[in-house]
Amino acid sequence: MTRLSEFDLIEKLFAPLATSPGAFGLKDDVATVAERRGCELVVTADAVVAGVDFFPGDPAPGVAKKALRVNLSDLAAKGAEPFGYLLTLLIPREIGRAYLKEFAEGLAQDQERFGVSLLGGDMSATPGPLSIAITAFGHVPAGRLVRRSGARAGDLVFVTGTIGDSGGGLALLKEPALSSSASAHDSLIGRYRLPEPRIAFAPAVRDASASIDISDGLLADLGHVAEASGVRIVVAADRIPRSPELKALWGDGEEAIVRAAAAGDDYEIAFTAPTLIQDAQTPVTCIGRVEQGSGVELLDAAGREIATPRKGYRHFER
Amino acid sequence: MTRLSEFDLIEKLFAPLATSPGAFGLKDDVATVAERRGCELVVTADAVVAGVDFFPGDPAPGVAKKALRVNLSDLAAKGAEPFGYLLTLLIPREIGRAYLKEFAEGLAQDQERFGVSLLGGDMSATPGPLSIAITAFGHVPAGRLVRRSGARAGDLVFVTGTIGDSGGGLALLKEPALSSSASAHDSLIGRYRLPEPRIAFAPAVRDASASIDISDGLLADLGHVAEASGVRIVVAADRIPRSPELKALWGDGEEAIVRAAAAGDDYEIAFTAPTLIQDAQTPVTCIGRVEQGSGVELLDAAGREIATPRKGYRHFER
Repeated sequence: MTRLSEFDLIEKLFAPLATSPGAFGLKDDVATVAERRGCELVVTADAVVAGVDFFPGDPAPGVAKKALRVNLSDLAAKGAEPFGYLLTLLIPREIGRAYLKEFAEGLAQDQERFGVSLLGGDMSATPGPLSIAITAFGHVPAGRLVRRSGARAGDLVFVTGTIGDSGGGLALLKEPALSSSASAHDSLIGRYRLPEPRIAFAPAVRDASASIDISDGLLADLGHVAEASGVRIVVAADRIPRSPELKALWGDGEEAIVRAAAAGDDYEIAFTAPTLIQDAQTPVTCIGRVEQGSGVELLDAAGREIATPRKGYRHFER
Repeated sequence: MTRLSEFDLIEKLFAPLATSPGAFGLKDDVATVAERRGCELVVTADAVVAGVDFFPGDPAPGVAKKALRVNLSDLAAKGAEPFGYLLTLLIPREIGRAYLKEFAEGLAQDQERFGVSLLGGDMSATPGPLSIAITAFGHVPAGRLVRRSGARAGDLVFVTGTIGDSGGGLALLKEPALSSSASAHDSLIGRYRLPEPRIAFAPAVRDASASIDISDGLLADLGHVAEASGVRIVVAADRIPRSPELKALWGDGEEAIVRAAAAGDDYEIAFTAPTLIQDAQTPVTCIGRVEQGSGVELLDAAGREIATPRKGYRHFER
């Protein structure tokens, strides 16, 4: 194992990512964050851990991108546009410089794609798994942040993209023998490994009454909206958009729909609004309505409630 | 082991810490950070890991406080006053609710003491050790942030407090048989476990030409200042302030001084300035001067250079 110096790693691999003047080229202990006139500063923190949120053998550039993107997804769902992030890396002994170089290259690619730059962070050795804790920063026009708590009876419920693909990819990674075509296989695993945060939809979603990104699972996250808003959310199971690849893997029955709606890591946006909100590029589907009451109800085509035994991923129930 | 629900933990233990309106009671995915007129927003991120930065058996309230204080120390050294933080917790299976309750109580005490509040964060299970990644936020009057890079030949070099106590405490924790009085023992271990960030000194240090908090060790951190400023820093060994407790443990010879100057985790502030900077309450000692050149030189009373084999703690040299 090459000797890794924290200072060397920072200077050679990570300082080139710190292009904002307030990052001081990672040569100081802090960063400064510039105000943007007429905007609020929005922050969020999310960590990913090897063996929990990704597989230890996953390619380094994708691991870096996933760690960043799960944070950008939170900002997008609130209507905020990202501009920077702090990166804390806990690095086990078996991770060498070559891995970290690829990790930094993955970050560089996503920085260019999403218009963000590294502001600072920390590195520490750990006897545990590779862990990546990111704090992401964004701006939203003042007063336009979309909360979880604004859903009102009479609103409709929408989601971007398709639901459950990431869960399908995770299932395939756990049981590679599951029958599926090679292209569907790659597509679903790709959705698990490398989510596509809905950054472009951030300006449009500012017109929503409530919004959340889907990380715990569609039903669980709609549950957060229902609770925060003090409303009941009713979802039509057969309206939940699912990809052909996921249907090929799990089928098209009620059980398959429940599975997709309970799976996590979609990083799509679920939102409520009185009428359809769209932009030029993002697929949006109406899946239900907001009513008085509490909780989330999944209905079949005949209007009967479908039992949902597992309402999403909870890290600490074990 | 009690079943831990992430949502339950957040609501019961951590939401009471989120007193800022922009934290939304931890009931949303993001926080908003208010501007302060005439100030810059300053951010920093530092993580602590069980088995690396603290001992797995250390009391939970102190672990929480140390994780927060190492971040507050970075802000203070730059002249910034803290107001909030994001907390990411990676929690191993053996950590139960009782531990986390004490952890949150420790944070509550330090929030009151330092005038900060929890803005948000993340929790994840980990197969590794308890790891705490914090991002801290502070304000500094516009243009008054003190960088590492402002030291100029002719400036004097100062430190707050005493140097090496934390290193002495760590040595005692590793080798409890080392002879020392009980009160000295407790005092030094206390400095290791629970640093006292120099928050109160933040307004005064804004008049410094360069500043850094001492985490890697006095010599290593002065080395960062020397490098960033393009200067040479010369330190008089016998001027380095050391506590009676540390002298009782390590003695008063040259080797003891070098050991103190190389030890990490002091969380005092080292700074340069043309003349003495003081406030009403903080002990400040002049320990050297800034010259043209590069590097850090430690001199004995006769002006001879003292060899310093180990210039501070580097996580990844192994």
